Amino acid sequence: MSLQGTYDPQNIFAMIIRGEAPCYKLYEDDDVLAFLDLFPQSFGHTLVIPKKAQARNLLEIDADSLCKMTLAVQKLTKVLVDELQPDGVQVAQFNGAPAGQTVFHIHMHIIPRFAGQGLGIHAAQKADPAELEKLQARLVQRIRG
Amino acid sequence: MSLQGTYDPQNIFAMIIRGEAPCYKLYEDDDVLAFLDLFPQSFGHTLVIPKKAQARNLLEIDADSLCKMTLAVQKLTKVLVDELQPDGVQVAQFNGAPAGQTVFHIHMHIIPRFAGQGLGIHAAQKADPAELEKLQARLVQRIRG
Repeated sequence: MSLQGTYDPQNIFAMIIRGEAPCYKLYEDDDVLAFLDLFPQSFGHTLVIPKKAQARNLLEIDADSLCKMTLAVQKLTKVLVDELQPDGVQVAQFNGAPAGQTVFHIHMHIIPRFAGQGLGIHAAQKADPAELEKLQARLVQRIRG
Repeated sequence: MSLQGTYDPQNIFAMIIRGEAPCYKLYEDDDVLAFLDLFPQSFGHTLVIPKKAQARNLLEIDADSLCKMTLAVQKLTKVLVDELQPDGVQVAQFNGAPAGQTVFHIHMHIIPRFAGQGLGIHAAQKADPAELEKLQARLVQRIRG
């Protein structure tokens, strides 16, 4: 998929937003949804997506949805830092398959980095569901806390 | 430098904002400054920084500055796509040295991706000044266009 194209309402993130597919949800409000990546590049790898924008990428999203998504990324980054105490955090947003985009509903990655630990390859290895559940419980608790 | 610490007003981006250091400027308004990365990971690698926030990273920046920086990233991404016609674009924001941050004034990377071309290593190789000047002229022209 290139940068040009048509939004496909059957993409997996659209299905998650509509409740037609499950996710390890961390946070949701009227505008955004945050959940754990199923193929984490590091412990705590989180995705944030806009709920109202039918946008494949940064070229297509409206300003309001973009701001709200970015503020949610900041909020979740703070939660991840507080709970997991990483040494750094990478935030990334990929546009187009040649840039690493695999789902064509705009999303931002929050990838905690731990000193001495390399990154997993994106979308390469599925996480253990039991571990994701445990991590989800910790982070949801922290958000509520 | 870890995620915790104090903002150093002598960092290179603060000097660029104050006009004490040069840059290959692409765009500036009251809130943001965009310029070419001196150590590009790809052709067109651009940085966007907030001017008012004395923030080292995403944990410290205020909401208004964060939104304005992100909207400027969108604007510049559109310019880069229009002018350079990449196959994809990566947007990245690094927090803390273990995440790849080298300048401790918050910034966002816009990295055009071209099919079949790998990424350069961050901060490894300085670009040819003549090429940066030519690229700057093209992009400034496109922004004014």
